Order: sequence, then structure tokens, then C-alpha cells
Amino acid sequence: MTGIDKAGILIEALPYIRNFYGTTIVVKYGGNAMINRQLKEAVCQDLVLLKFIGLNPVVVHGGGPEISSMMKRLGKEPAFVNGLRVTDDETMEIAQMVLVGKINTELVTLLNGFGGKAVGLNGKDANLIQAKKHSDEDVDLGFVGDVELINPQLLNILCREGYIPVVSSVGVGEDGASYNINADLVAGVLAGEMQAAKLILLTDVEGIYEEPSDPGSLISSLSISKARRLMAEGKIGRGMIPKVEACIDALQSGVGRTHIIDGRQLHSILLEIFTNEGIGTMVVPDEKREASK
Amino acid sequence: MTGIDKAGILIEALPYIRNFYGTTIVVKYGGNAMINRQLKEAVCQDLVLLKFIGLNPVVVHGGGPEISSMMKRLGKEPAFVNGLRVTDDETMEIAQMVLVGKINTELVTLLNGFGGKAVGLNGKDANLIQAKKHSDEDVDLGFVGDVELINPQLLNILCREGYIPVVSSVGVGEDGASYNINADLVAGVLAGEMQAAKLILLTDVEGIYEEPSDPGSLISSLSISKARRLMAEGKIGRGMIPKVEACIDALQSGVGRTHIIDGRQLHSILLEIFTNEGIGTMVVPDEKREASK
Amino acid sequence: MTGIDKAGILIEALPYIRNFYGTTIVVKYGGNAMINRQLKEAVCQDLVLLKFIGLNPVVVHGGGPEISSMMKRLGKEPAFVNGLRVTDDETMEIAQMVLVGKINTELVTLLNGFGGKAVGLNGKDANLIQAKKHSDEDVDLGFVGDVELINPQLLNILCREGYIPVVSSVGVGEDGASYNINADLVAGVLAGEMQAAKLILLTDVEGIYEEPSDPGSLISSLSISKARRLMAEGKIGRGMIPKVEACIDALQSGVGRTHIIDGRQLHSILLEIFTNEGIGTMVVPDEKREASK
Amino acid sequence: MTGIDKAGILIEALPYIRNFYGTTIVVKYGGNAMINRQLKEAVCQDLVLLKFIGLNPVVVHGGGPEISSMMKRLGKEPAFVNGLRVTDDETMEIAQMVLVGKINTELVTLLNGFGGKAVGLNGKDANLIQAKKHSDEDVDLGFVGDVELINPQLLNILCREGYIPVVSSVGVGEDGASYNINADLVAGVLAGEMQAAKLILLTDVEGIYEEPSDPGSLISSLSISKARRLMAEGKIGRGMIPKVEACIDALQSGVGRTHIIDGRQLHSILLEIFTNEGIGTMVVPDEKREASK
Amino acid sequence: MTGIDKAGILIEALPYIRNFYGTTIVVKYGGNAMINRQLKEAVCQDLVLLKFIGLNPVVVHGGGPEISSMMKRLGKEPAFVNGLRVTDDETMEIAQMVLVGKINTELVTLLNGFGGKAVGLNGKDANLIQAKKHSDEDVDLGFVGDVELINPQLLNILCREGYIPVVSSVGVGEDGASYNINADLVAGVLAGEMQAAKLILLTDVEGIYEEPSDPGSLISSLSISKARRLMAEGKIGRGMIPKVEACIDALQSGVGRTHIIDGRQLHSILLEIFTNEGIGTMVVPDEKREASK
Amino acid sequence: MTGIDKAGILIEALPYIRNFYGTTIVVKYGGNAMINRQLKEAVCQDLVLLKFIGLNPVVVHGGGPEISSMMKRLGKEPAFVNGLRVTDDETMEIAQMVLVGKINTELVTLLNGFGGKAVGLNGKDANLIQAKKHSDEDVDLGFVGDVELINPQLLNILCREGYIPVVSSVGVGEDGASYNINADLVAGVLAGEMQAAKLILLTDVEGIYEEPSDPGSLISSLSISKARRLMAEGKIGRGMIPKVEACIDALQSGVGRTHIIDGRQLHSILLEIFTNEGIGTMVVPDEKREASK
Repeated sequence: MTGIDKAGILIEALPYIRNFYGTTIVVKYGGNAMINRQLKEAVCQDLVLLKFIGLNPVVVHGGGPEISSMMKRLGKEPAFVNGLRVTDDETMEIAQMVLVGKINTELVTLLNGFGGKAVGLNGKDANLIQAKKHSDEDVDLGFVGDVELINPQLLNILCREGYIPVVSSVGVGEDGASYNINADLVAGVLAGEMQAAKLILLTDVEGIYEEPSDPGSLISSLSISKARRLMAEGKIGRGMIPKVEACIDALQSGVGRTHIIDGRQLHSILLEIFTNEGIGTMVVPDEKREASK
Repeated sequence: MTGIDKAGILIEALPYIRNFYGTTIVVKYGGNAMINRQLKEAVCQDLVLLKFIGLNPVVVHGGGPEISSMMKRLGKEPAFVNGLRVTDDETMEIAQMVLVGKINTELVTLLNGFGGKAVGLNGKDANLIQAKKHSDEDVDLGFVGDVELINPQLLNILCREGYIPVVSSVGVGEDGASYNINADLVAGVLAGEMQAAKLILLTDVEGIYEEPSDPGSLISSLSISKARRLMAEGKIGRGMIPKVEACIDALQSGVGRTHIIDGRQLHSILLEIFTNEGIGTMVVPDEKREASK
Repeated sequence: MTGIDKAGILIEALPYIRNFYGTTIVVKYGGNAMINRQLKEAVCQDLVLLKFIGLNPVVVHGGGPEISSMMKRLGKEPAFVNGLRVTDDETMEIAQMVLVGKINTELVTLLNGFGGKAVGLNGKDANLIQAKKHSDEDVDLGFVGDVELINPQLLNILCREGYIPVVSSVGVGEDGASYNINADLVAGVLAGEMQAAKLILLTDVEGIYEEPSDPGSLISSLSISKARRLMAEGKIGRGMIPKVEACIDALQSGVGRTHIIDGRQLHSILLEIFTNEGIGTMVVPDEKREASK
Repeated sequence: MTGIDKAGILIEALPYIRNFYGTTIVVKYGGNAMINRQLKEAVCQDLVLLKFIGLNPVVVHGGGPEISSMMKRLGKEPAFVNGLRVTDDETMEIAQMVLVGKINTELVTLLNGFGGKAVGLNGKDANLIQAKKHSDEDVDLGFVGDVELINPQLLNILCREGYIPVVSSVGVGEDGASYNINADLVAGVLAGEMQAAKLILLTDVEGIYEEPSDPGSLISSLSISKARRLMAEGKIGRGMIPKVEACIDALQSGVGRTHIIDGRQLHSILLEIFTNEGIGTMVVPDEKREASK
Repeated sequence: MTGIDKAGILIEALPYIRNFYGTTIVVKYGGNAMINRQLKEAVCQDLVLLKFIGLNPVVVHGGGPEISSMMKRLGKEPAFVNGLRVTDDETMEIAQMVLVGKINTELVTLLNGFGGKAVGLNGKDANLIQAKKHSDEDVDLGFVGDVELINPQLLNILCREGYIPVVSSVGVGEDGASYNINADLVAGVLAGEMQAAKLILLTDVEGIYEEPSDPGSLISSLSISKARRLMAEGKIGRGMIPKVEACIDALQSGVGRTHIIDGRQLHSILLEIFTNEGIGTMVVPDEKREASK
Repeated sequence: MTGIDKAGILIEALPYIRNFYGTTIVVKYGGNAMINRQLKEAVCQDLVLLKFIGLNPVVVHGGGPEISSMMKRLGKEPAFVNGLRVTDDETMEIAQMVLVGKINTELVTLLNGFGGKAVGLNGKDANLIQAKKHSDEDVDLGFVGDVELINPQLLNILCREGYIPVVSSVGVGEDGASYNINADLVAGVLAGEMQAAKLILLTDVEGIYEEPSDPGSLISSLSISKARRLMAEGKIGRGMIPKVEACIDALQSGVGRTHIIDGRQLHSILLEIFTNEGIGTMVVPDEKREASK
């Protein structure tokens, strides 16, 4: 690559660095990017890079597969209702150990390995994520919760002081009980509370399609009303729905931009933020009709 | 109790509040106080009280028995050499999940229940506790570590901003690996780095005795040189030795006072700090000959 | 007393310390508590304790008996109209010398003796208390004044910097003349201007009674409207009326709670603030119906 | 006066304003300037002007004649030994009332009348002036004290926040007792502790003379060693000696310049500071040989 | 002059120093005061004096005669339409070099010579003065501009940090081109943006007259509506009109007072600000009827 | 270019952004980069990019050719002795107008066009560059100066507040006269005073060669002692000598790294700072033997 090519990349990134300097970027981390070692490292490197150049990344993660795997090691069979994990006392204890004591710690270690100063948190720290029991379903799912309230003060302090917060999606009930909450939804509310400039949700697909079966129908900019229509029409899969809802929720709370991007692509976060074309699907308010990024 | 009695207690506490206002108190939490529900709550209530009146408590904890219990649930037999846990990869993973994802989170929740703003941390957060492999023994103990370096900056920020840090004694090696470290020793070094006013170690005995077999021989003030002599004479048990060494280490790093107290007594922390007679054994520098607290 | 008893007292005080931390407590000092040496010391010790644990006490005092006594030493007969001192030039000069140069200085010295950093002030310092001539009476009482305006800036700075302001109830007129003002009323306005959490007025009775002749009729919580009715019915004595009015004025200016307590009880301030039952009579807004403290 | 004349005065003042901006000027107030109404007002106006243009004046005052006069009103005969007032309990009480409750308050009022924000203090406020019993004389003089220690923190805060501190020369002993201290000496130590740029002592003569009997022998710049010689030769009167000693003491503690000036001249402080020729006698270190101001 | 006379001048200045402390004074510098060496130095000395005593002077200057003179040295004939310079590319280049590289630098040097810390700026620095092409005239005048927007942030920072900004009246267009703008108008808008306490415009006459031909008809206080009437009646000359308009504009943007004064009088700025009678013509809002300064 | 290529460039830049965040980078701007429009814009874009990502660029420039050109337009023949311009009064006036009123302003405008907030300065602003007459030569060169002292305070404030200072190499003598100083040497001293992390000098060659005639002999890392030897051997041309000396001077004052790079290459500054290989010649202390950048 010639010097001029290299300079070109740096120069393309310039207006984005200017625009996002000092802002908060909430990244929901999950899917393959959390399993594949190379992807994992690329995501962590990207997040540290964001911090180095003056943005404030905040990471939110869940960890379904690892929870199930640990349950099995302990002789317990995972069960789901409408995609939600049935979470009795023991399951919650296991989930929390895996999320907080394993996945979170590993992420923190990786981020620090790239020169970041990451700090692991979960919703119980300083009552960061207050939860209430999820009660939409017919059956009692146990300790499955919804976000009641986010206290972003601790996150703001850590960001200001140079740290990268890494948040496990465990919430705390009024009685001190732990609740397992969908990490996409946590990320959406948290981005709103922190008045983030961007919410980025990593997935294992390229984005959202007009027709799920047609890879050429990837939507680069999706309005809220169209997203709702696609969901009503059943064109958005169950796993993707909380992501879309997190985007809508965040947009309605004042977050600047929201993105569902392909976590399988190396350095997808950097490319989304710092290149003109961006990647994946950007969910936008209805009034904001933008053809391109 | 009469009003004058009540007032008397508050007034006795006055000079201690004055002396310790704004200072750091490092508390090593462990033993029965970590198992018995009532003791646990009393400790947490005490720590929150300290914070409310302007002291900066920092909690350090280990969690041997719960680690062993989880290992057994996972079909793994705990093994020890000279009192140190043989810690292979899988053991370390389990230890970390239990310490960080269970014990720490539970402590944080309890502290918050009393109105504190506790934040759980472990040595990997912001590289708080840098460890090196423990190599004093003849056999390879795996991921058993010694403290190489404490970075107290994150703790200082959290204290200043009104939080109570709760630190699991997991360290991070240069390569990012987790190390299991004796929590007493972590507490000692950490107290030194933070220039704590006090280091308090909770145990399951009343303190240190001249003659272990004679309950009447409890030593209220123990000089470093006498402590060393008692250890040499074998009069201090193996479990107590790291506590005494933590005290000596802390004193030599400038910590004001160090205490080994009985965690089985309800509110022993409050009583140690705020009453004239104190409790347990205070380890003091040789030159500081104090008959009483 | 057992350790557990002692701990209990400290723990009872906890929610009050939490609630009042950083707030301002205005204490009107007077009556026996200003004459009896033991009571005087107990009050000062209490105030220093409040400061040590993070509250901001501000003391307001008058000093009628000592003024009369000094007048007599100088061969001048005190005279009163409707309980107000007839205050000519010379009387005002004497009153000021006694209040500022004797009572105030003595209070400051006592507070400092308990480890406080007290600073004596009067209404002329930085025009703290601006007064206008009192003109409700038929006769000209000379330099008897009412509060026109309080400038709390100096008090706020001193509190913030760790000092305990002690204010003599001398006001300054537009022309620079000194005015003698009722200290209860000064305390009430001052508490309002400082947005104090509490106004505490020390008296020589237990509080306010339904029936002055019936000691069993002490009112622990008195609404403003009931207070007005009792005053209208003549059931509140002349000396008590300015205290009740100070409470009403303070409540209407946003002060949290107002208390008329028995200054003859040792450490009554501590007991009022830090025990569940409190003492004396709390004057409360009408809408705030609280059976107990 | 023409515009150019007026401008000339302002311009002459310029380098002095530049030099003294933000510095502390300690003024010992006394003599005729404290008795004559016109002089008093001129001094207060000058001090407020200094504050307005960014200097930090601090006033120290005594008040011998008024103390004696009040003693007589109370039927007590003043007594002196070697120029020092014999100060029993009652005398000290009277002295304190007069200094703190009368002279200080009057000064504060005058300064505020000119638009200043003056705050009256004495050595007991925040233990500002710690005293020890004066013991140089053969006889016991009672509560006559020497300066043991000055705590300038309160003064520094008040200056920084825009106030003019006015300090009565009453000190506090270890036991809380009041001590009467020579105000010149207080001013000297205080100027040293505050690292004042100037110490100005107002007197009732033009300055110091080579020959007391020869008005033409006024010394404009007096070295420390020459001052000592003149004192040894008896050429400096008893009342002037503490002033000269205060200057020497201040110079040796790092005060920039010290001046003994004629308080009988209207606005002598302004003229000393802001005109090229200055007035009175400047006491200078030996090594600092300056012919003119 | 006697000491009392000198003191009198200083004392007269006192209320003005108090009133203007910390405020911004915008001075439009021009005319003879910019040519005559003695006047130039007097202006600079005055400005530095203002800074020393806590005011924040900001200087705005143009430089018509010097631009014409440099044009002639370069063989270019100056041309004017309705008093506005026809400004082609080359003329603008010359104008900028003269204003920024000669007049401004010289002013800065003079101010620094009197002990100031002056910093030269022009409208292109940090886009301080954004201009649009002047289009009121029938002919195309080239790079003659009007003020579009003032960004006062840089000026505020420099003032706060102790510097004296000296601003050349060169503006920057959207395309980066330089525009020559009338310095009076720049000064007026800039005073408004900085919420200056005063705008002072130096001219070569005593002020504004009722009858231009009658030197005795100098107006000391001129209301906006009267100023407009005089302009409509042709009684205010063309060179004076932008000054009057600058005053009106500034007043309507919240500037406290505006003055057109005689720059030929030595130290006219000092005299205007610090003497009771002031000098020149003060333009005042209609509702503000003030007989004297 | 693929996403992964793009990401690679950004990632390569990461450690440099981390290392240089918050540091000062002094860039001496000159040669072709100051003439060619495209190069000029590329340099300005690079500098603004540096600022956006948290570095503090400071620009120093001279402008020999434009000064000569303006002299000729004014009918004055440039003259040189040993490469130094003979600078009489008129020449200095012209030089200053060109440097400050033309070149500097143009640079500021370009930088602002790319979104920077540039502020033009010269050595007379706040006495930034104090100069003394250059006296090394046999003949009197007039207003040719050497750096006597740099006052970096203004530059530090502007950097901290988000501005990019652009400094013309004009110095001020004690008497206020302007001096023409070699811009390379100014940049060297200034980098030292600001404790810059880097000094970058733009030239019109690739760097320094072992053998000037052999383009393959470009030296990428040149020690001070070797630089001195090459100068002694005449292998470094006269124009390059001040650059080498500026580097040596800067290194000896604590500047981290110094670079002589090819200003003819587009975006050479970005490439030097953010790529692993760097460009041009890095001058390094003797003890610092680094084969590569």
C-alpha cells in the first residue's frame, strides 16, 4: 500500500473522529464475536482504539451458550420458553457466575491486553441496573427480568477517568435478587441513559434484510416504522427482534445513531465508525431519511 | 438505656471519627463472618456506616470453602500442598467464577442493601492486582500467585466518588492469566499502597495468644519483633501466619494501625474503630509501645 | 454496657447521619444551656461532633441576662416594654460588647476546646444580618431591630471550609447602627436563607404543652395551624412565642424540620438528631402529619 | 486640577498596583487614626480601595485607651508595669469586650460603609493567635501574652473569598484563656505567616528620627542593624520599640517591606503604597540599601 | 500637588474601579491617537493600567491612512466610493499586511513595553470575525465586508488568562477570503458579543455637537433617538456615522455604556473611566436619561 | 481496498495515538510545502487531524522567498551574507508584514478551513520570542536575531483550550524592536521549552545522506555525534545545518524525537507519526541507538 493510500484512510477517518470525540459509544457484544478468538481480539482492539482517540466505549454482554454449557457440566438441563431461559435459583447462580466471573473477566483481560483500562461491572454494582421480574409470559420464568432503571453515574465516572466499563447483563431486584436480562435490551436503555452518540449491536448476520431469504436485500438504513412493519410481517427473526427494539428504544431516548452490524467481520466496529460507507443496518428515526451513512 | 448513656457512646466515638475522617480502612473479610448470615449483614452494615461518616472502607475477600464446594459439584477433588490450593486451569476458572461471580456479587448486594454504593472488582480490572507465579514451594501449584504490584488508582477514584470497592483476591499475570492469591496478603499490600489508616483482618478467633492453649493469654498489642518470635516458636498457627505477615507488611509500608479481630462478634469492626478499648490483637511497630488501644 | 449495646446505638444513628450529611443545622443557643457550665460544654461537644461527622452546625445566640448584669455593673437600670429591652445608645453599646466580646468569644473558645474550628461573627460582619428598626410597639424602643435581610454567603463559605460559625444576634442598619434583635427570630430567618435541614431551639422547658399546667400534655409533633391556635388561646407563654414563630417562618422558607427542645438535658442536640424517638416538640407544616419523629 | 494631572496620579500608581496585585498588606491600626473620626474614615476608605484593586489588606488593632476608659467606668483603676498593662481576670474580660465587641465591630462597620466586606476576628476564632503567658518581667502581669503561633488559614480563605479580615490582638492560651498581646507584635508575626508584601504600622509621629528632638532628622530608610543601634542608644522611645521589633521580625520572616508611617496624615496608607516618594520610615534588611522608596 | 490632592484622585477612581472590576472594556483605537507617538503611548499605558487593576480591555483597530500609504509605495492608487475603499485582491493583501503585520504588531509591542501581555489577533484567527460581502452600494467594492458573526470565545479565554487582545478589523468569509471591515462596526458588535461594560471609540474631535459649527454645543449625553434624528438631519459627519451606529448597536446588544471620546487628549481613556465628569459624548438608550456621567 | 486493509491502517496508528496523546508536536513549516497549494493543504489537513485526535500541534514558519519577492515589489534588492539576510529597518518592516500579515494569516485560514481553530502569533505577542541581535558575523546584519528566551505560557494555554498556534519567526528585542530569526532555530528552542514529544522539520529533500550525491545513502536514524561529524566534514549543506542544530538543541532540552522529513511528499507528517516505518531522517541522542523508527 502506498503512503498516499495509508494517508487516505487516516484522512477519511478524520471527520468521524471529530464528530465522535468525547461521546459515548455503547457496544452490545455477542454471537460469534464472543466465541472466535480472532474476532474477540479484533473487537477488543477496536474498543481500545476508540478509547485512545477520545471516544468512550461502554461494553454490554450476555452469554447464553456458556451459561447452558456450565449448567450441563453441573448436571442441569437448560430449558427455554419463547426463547427465554427458565431461570430458577440455581440457574441464576450459575448464570451470574458465568457472566460475571468468566465472560466479563475474560473480556476485561483482553481489553487490558491491548492497553485499555477495562473495569468489569454488572447490574448489581452500585445498583447499576435495577430490574423487575419479567411477566409478559404465561409461565413463571423465575429470575428473568426487565430493565426498571439504569443508574449511569458510575459508568460516567469511569468513562471520564479513562476506563472502559464492561457490563454483564445481570440486574438487581428491589429485594437484592439477581435477574437475568436480555443484553440487547440492557444496551438499548443504557445507551439512552448515557445519551450515547451510537449504539452498536454485534450479530452473526450482515444486518436486516427486506427478504430474509435474499442476501441481496440487505437494508442499509431502516426507519423505525418500516422496522415495525417488518416485525409485524414476521420478516425479522426472533433473535433479531430485541436488537431492533433496543435500537428503537435508544433512538427514542435521544441516542444519535443505532447500528446492527456483522460481528463476524474483523474490525467491524472500526469500519462502521470510521469509514464513509459504514456497514450493516442503521436503524433511524422516521423523520431522518438518509440514503447513506 | 438512658439518653445520657446513648449520648456517651456517640461521644466516645467522636475522637475516632475525627481521626479517621477521610482515611482509608482496608478490611479483609473472611471466615465465619462470610458464612453466617447475621454476621455477614452486621459486617456490611458496619462498612456502610463507615462510609456514611466519611471513612473510605475497602473490602478484600477470598473464599476457599466455597471454591472447594463448587469444585466438588463439578466433580473435581480439591488438593492442597502446605495449605495452598493446587490450582490447575480448570480450578482457576472455577475459583474465579466463585470469587468474582458469586461471593463478590453477594457482598456487593448486601452492602447496597444497607444503603452503600458498593462496586465489585477483582485484580484483573484495570490491572488492579498484578501477580507473579508463586514459586516458594517444591511442587508446581499452578495458578497460585504472589502480589507483584497493586495499582490503587481505580480504588482511589471510587473511594473519592463515594463508592465502596469490594475486591476479589484474583491477580493477573503478565500474560493475562488469572492467579489465585492469598487474600490476607493482598489486603496487606493494598493497604500499604493506599496508605490506609487501618488494616483490619477478620478471623474466627479472638486474636493472637501468648499460649494458643490459654484463652486468657490474648495479646492486645503485639510488636513486630514479638510476632516474629512467636511465629518462629510455632505459637502462631498456619492459617494465622499470612494475617500476621500482612500486618507486618502493611505497617512497614506506612499503614497506621493493623488489627486481627474476631469476626464472630457482631459489629466487631465498629467496636474496634469507635470504642476506647478496641478488640482483638493490634500488631504494632516495635518502636510504638502502646499498652492500650 | 455490652459491645452489642454500643454497636446498637451507633447503628441507630446511621440513617440520620446518612440523611443529614452535608446539611446545615441551625441551633439557637440560650437559656440554662448558656449558663450551666456542664450543659454549656455538652452543647459545644455535640456541635463539634456534628461537624466531625459531616453536618454543618451554625450557632445563633442572644444573651439577655448577661447584658442586664453588665448594665447594672455600669450603673444602668435595664428596662423592658412587652418583654423587649428598651435600648438606647449606651445600652446598645453594652449589649454589643457583652454579646460579641464576651458570650460569643466564650462559646468559640469552648467549641475550639473540643476540637472544633469555631469562628465568632455578628450581624455586622460582611453585613450578615441587615436590620430595620422594630416599630410594632407604641413606644420607641431605640435600637431594637427586626431582620430585614440575611446574607448567608460568608456562613456558607465558612461551613464549606470546615468552620463552625457562631453568630451574635446583633444586626446592622442601613446607616451602620447596631440593632439588638431577638435571637430566635434571627435563627429562624437564617435557617431559611441557608436552606437548613433542621432548626433547633434550646429552651428551659421540655417543649410545648397542650395545657401548660399539665406536664403530661407535652406535644411531640405540633402543626403550624395548631401552634397558631394555641398562641391565640394564650396557651403558649410570651418567651416561647418567638421560638414558635421562628419555627413557622423557617418551615415556610423551606427548612426541613424545626424543633423546640429542652436545653437542660445533657446532649439534647445529639439525642434529638441521632435517636429514633427524638426529644421535645417538633413543629411541622400542616400537611405533614407525623405521629412520631 | 487638569486632566493630565489627574491622569499623572493614576499612572504613577500603576507600577505599584502591578507589583502588589494579589499580595497581602498587613496594617496595624492604632493611635490617633483610631480616635479621630475623619482619620478613621480615611483609613477605612484606603483599605477598601486596596481590596477593590486586588490587594488583600488585613487589619490588626489593639485599643489601650478605650480599655482603660471602660475599666474606669466599671470602677477599676488601670495599672502598668514597664508600659505593660497589669491584666487580672476582670481586666482581661473588659479588654476583650472592648477590643472585640466595640473597637473591632466599629472598624468592621466603617469598612462595610465604604463598600468593603469586612469580617471581625480575634485570636480565639479558629485558634488564630495562640498565645503563651508573657514572662519577661519580674512581676506577674496576669493575662499579658506573647504570640506562640499564628494559624493564617482562616485569614487566607477570607482574603481569597473577597473579605477584609479585622483582627483584635487577643490571643488564646493552651487552656482556652484569653491573653492581651501587643498588637504591633501580632501584626509583625501575622505578616510573616501570611508572607505579606508589606507591613504598615500607623503611629502618631512622622516616623523614626536620628535625633528624636530634631524633626529634620526623619529617617526614610532604616536598616535593621541601625535600628538596633538606635534602640540600644535609647534614641527610640518605648512606644516605638515594639513597632520596630515587629518590622524586624516580619522582615526576617520574609515580608517584602515594612513601614512605620504617620497615621495622622489623611490617606497615609494610599500615599505610602501608591506614590513614588512614599512616606514615613521604611525598615529594611541590612543588605538592602535603598536610598529611596 | 499635595498628598491630599493625590489621594483625592485615587479615591475618586474607587467607585469606578469597583464597578468595572472584571468587566470588559472594548476600545476602538484610531485617528490621531494611532499616529502621534505620545498619544499612542498614552493610550497603551492606559490600557495596561486597566488590565492591572482588573478590567479586561480589548482593542480593535483599523488603519486606513497606512494602507493607502503602502498602496502608493507599491504603485497602486487608493480609490473610494461613498467613503469605502475599493478593495480588489491586491488591495486586500496589502491592507491585511499593513493591519496585521504592521499596525497590530506595533500596538502589541507598545502595550508589552508598558508591562502588558498583549496578543495580536485578526478576524481570521479561530474565525473570530466572520464576514459577508458588503452589498449596500451600487458598485462592487470587492473585499469590503460586513460583520456576519463574532466568536468571542478566544477573546474571553485570553482576557481570563491575563492577556490584552488587539484585534485587526479583518474578517473571514465562508470561503476563507479576507474582508476589510469598518473597525468601528466591528468594535460595536464585538462589545455586544462580549457583553462589555463599556465601548469606547477614539476620534479626532471632542465628541458630537448639536451644531457641528458650534464648539460650545458638545453633547455629553446623547440618546439613541436624538442620535438618529441628528444623523437624519445631516448634523453628524460621514466619518462619525459608523461610530454612532456602533454605539447604538452595542447598546441594543446589552453593552452598559458607550462613549465617543477625543483621542487627541492624553490619557482620555483613563479620564473617561475614572473621573466623575468623564469626557466626550456618551450615547445612551432612550429610556436612560442621565444628565451627567 | 478491503475493509481489513483499512482496519489495518487504523490499527497500525493505534500505538502512536496512544503514545502521543496529549503531547506537543512542533512542526517547522517551510520549503515547497509552503508554496505548492496541494502540499500546503495536505500539511494543514494533517495538523488538524493531529489536533482532532488529541495531539497538540504547534506550527513555526519563516518565509524567505516571499519576503524577497515583496522587497522587490517595493524596489528594494535583497542582500545576504553567509546565507543570512541583511536586514535594515525597512527590510524588517517588510519581512514582518509578509510573515505576520500574509504567510501566517494564510496558514491560519487554511487550517481553519479544515476545521481547526488556528491562531496566528509572532514572537512579539506576549513577548513570546525574546531575541538578541545576532553577532556571530563580521558585518552588521541589522535586525537579524538569535533566540534569547521563549515564553511558552501563551502557547500552552492555547493548546489546552483547543487551538493550534501558528508562530511567525519574528522575535522582540529588549527595546521592542523586531528581529528576523531563523525559523528552524526558533522551532528547536520552542520545542524544548514546551517539552514537545516531537520536533518535525519539513524540507525539500528526503532527509540527510551519508553522501549528498548518493540518493541511496539516506540516513534514517542519525546520532548527534555523527551529525556533528558530517557537518564538520561539510557533508551537510548550509541550508540543512540550522535544521540539524535545531534537532540537537531540542534533544538536549528534553524533546523526545526530532525528524527532518520531506515536505514534498503529501501527508508526510501523518506518515511520519502514524506508520511503523516513518519517513526521512530521525536525529537521535548518541545513547539512543535505534535501527528503526
